[in-house]
Amino acid sequence: MNNDVQNIKKLIINEPFKLDCGKIIKDFPIAYETYGNLNKKKNNAILVFHALTGDQFVTNINPITKREGWWTTAVGPGKAIDTNKFFVICANVLGGCMGSFGPKEINPENNKIFGTSFPVITIKDIVKAQKYLIDNLGIKKLLAIAGGSMGGMQVLQFISLYPDIAHAAIPIACSASHSAQNIALNELGRQAIMADPNWKKENVTPNKGLAVARMAAHITYLSKKGLQEKFGRKLQDEGSLKFSFDADFQIESYLRYQGANFVDRFDANSYLYITRAMDYFDLEKQFNGNLSLAFKDTKSKFCVISFSSDWLYPTVENKEIVIALNACGANVGFVEINSDRGHDSFLLNVPKFLKTLNEFINTTYNEVNNEKRI
Amino acid sequence: MNNDVQNIKKLIINEPFKLDCGKIIKDFPIAYETYGNLNKKKNNAILVFHALTGDQFVTNINPITKREGWWTTAVGPGKAIDTNKFFVICANVLGGCMGSFGPKEINPENNKIFGTSFPVITIKDIVKAQKYLIDNLGIKKLLAIAGGSMGGMQVLQFISLYPDIAHAAIPIACSASHSAQNIALNELGRQAIMADPNWKKENVTPNKGLAVARMAAHITYLSKKGLQEKFGRKLQDEGSLKFSFDADFQIESYLRYQGANFVDRFDANSYLYITRAMDYFDLEKQFNGNLSLAFKDTKSKFCVISFSSDWLYPTVENKEIVIALNACGANVGFVEINSDRGHDSFLLNVPKFLKTLNEFINTTYNEVNNEKRI
Repeated sequence: MNNDVQNIKKLIINEPFKLDCGKIIKDFPIAYETYGNLNKKKNNAILVFHALTGDQFVTNINPITKREGWWTTAVGPGKAIDTNKFFVICANVLGGCMGSFGPKEINPENNKIFGTSFPVITIKDIVKAQKYLIDNLGIKKLLAIAGGSMGGMQVLQFISLYPDIAHAAIPIACSASHSAQNIALNELGRQAIMADPNWKKENVTPNKGLAVARMAAHITYLSKKGLQEKFGRKLQDEGSLKFSFDADFQIESYLRYQGANFVDRFDANSYLYITRAMDYFDLEKQFNGNLSLAFKDTKSKFCVISFSSDWLYPTVENKEIVIALNACGANVGFVEINSDRGHDSFLLNVPKFLKTLNEFINTTYNEVNNEKRI
Repeated sequence: MNNDVQNIKKLIINEPFKLDCGKIIKDFPIAYETYGNLNKKKNNAILVFHALTGDQFVTNINPITKREGWWTTAVGPGKAIDTNKFFVICANVLGGCMGSFGPKEINPENNKIFGTSFPVITIKDIVKAQKYLIDNLGIKKLLAIAGGSMGGMQVLQFISLYPDIAHAAIPIACSASHSAQNIALNELGRQAIMADPNWKKENVTPNKGLAVARMAAHITYLSKKGLQEKFGRKLQDEGSLKFSFDADFQIESYLRYQGANFVDRFDANSYLYITRAMDYFDLEKQFNGNLSLAFKDTKSKFCVISFSSDWLYPTVENKEIVIALNACGANVGFVEINSDRGHDSFLLNVPKFLKTLNEFINTTYNEVNNEKRI
């Protein structure tokens, strides 16, 4: 880790914070980043939630990884979420590995890395920690909250806990609870990590297992059609097959690259904890089987967005959210964006998606400033 | 390995056999099993091809694993493929681990297990070896050839090499070439095996890696809907979550079982070689981009069968075979069976599927015996 880590913004939460698992933590950091400026009325703030392997560095160059922020397509000056106009906030999730309290941090009790002695956390824990951040920034009401995949789950959990926290809520490509298939896919990743003999050892990291987990996940982020169009059966070396186990096909080489590239920037235990939080998420169960009760007190406008080729969080699961919102008379719009790029579409340059995001947020902002909405 | 291995039927292929990779092998075994009796006319033989992790023990109790044969639902006395009436033959594929020549066998040159020094084999190599078996059994023309998944690929390859070998051909839940997604999924399994430090070591086996590969594959064999209906979010222990990385959900426990159970009966290197053969399979490419040329000389009747919820070899890919068969004027029927049980449907008790199989084979047999077909 380089010196840039010193410059990461952190909020230290001092008071005792009771986790869903029953354990109490305190004096722990939540790392965050902001983009743009908070206006005088403090009514232009947008809280963005990151997905499984994201972090607080939404746009520009991530100072730690030196790579582009994960939502550079959507967030920045003049972009769909315009940082010339809006104040964008994003926090690294609890359990993460980019400065927030997570299994990579040092346990002050024994001066060792927490690893699997870190408590199991939930999406509810994750968003409750972020509420401290919003309070600390002096923001009473956010203009909008938005996120895709696990970020969308956080949108749903956040608004159900704090019904009056945001004028607009945008859950993208997500679900109100993980399906059996999604639990299975996460468990596959966890098993790959836990199968690595370097897991739980000191001074070594289970990079091979983590790479396999990432490869598995990466396949699920893309659609069958998208993969076929991009890679098909194209060979690495033009011409003939190698008759070996080297990467013959471009798709193999691409996957290996995705795996190898990931281990430099992500902690294997964070991968375990965050996937666990996703699997545990079940908003319907929190409200005794009636999902619409999760939204009954909110006056937020919702824009639920799904992608046609997303098989990880298919449209039908996003529609369950829309059904529940309608059932409690919430103000809800729903858009299914046609895209062959699978679940990853929310991170990519998909013009109709970005236009939807842009117009929904701008309209909300205009309404708020015209005091049509309080 | 117990004494039962001694009783495995084997054909030793003595003559030099040139593999697609260029290497020549000879004096190698092809293990096989037969069920029922060959009639005097020798016109009641059905060659069944197994899938990735199958073997020659189609029905009854597998004498080695002591488990039920992989196609007990379809093959046996009075079943869809009636062994009171038909003579069913199945060979363990080249590269397999149930007695046929594969990476688990001893290399006579150094008295060590071949492992990754075994040559890379193809679906074409696999079916060519089985042609020796049919010849050896004195069968000039098979009543039918049938197989699902990789077994279906073998059906297609076999009939394209030997257009006059069978009256009927039944490729089930397969494809004429592996899609990018399927290559990716196989590569994931291979990477899981190759990530295991026990891989390529002597006297140990990469069981953890192989178990992860099996878990990954198992997810792809079931449909999202099927998994949801069977497992949903059901917990292992009624009541509350454990807040740990133990198996909380039934689907996790099920997957772990599938992984652990598999390593006892399958060789990790066979998994590498056979998935490689599947990925290399591209019948269209063999015929310079015109799949229908693969079938132009055959007079076989075809029955192509797909399953509605199979996302590994979806109906659209099975239909490509039907289109190619129609394009060359072949006699072809196509059935998409409605089933929520995903790719695995071909192994399960899906009545409409079994009825289709049964009636197609019986009709063919009646035609052959009435000499409507020569």
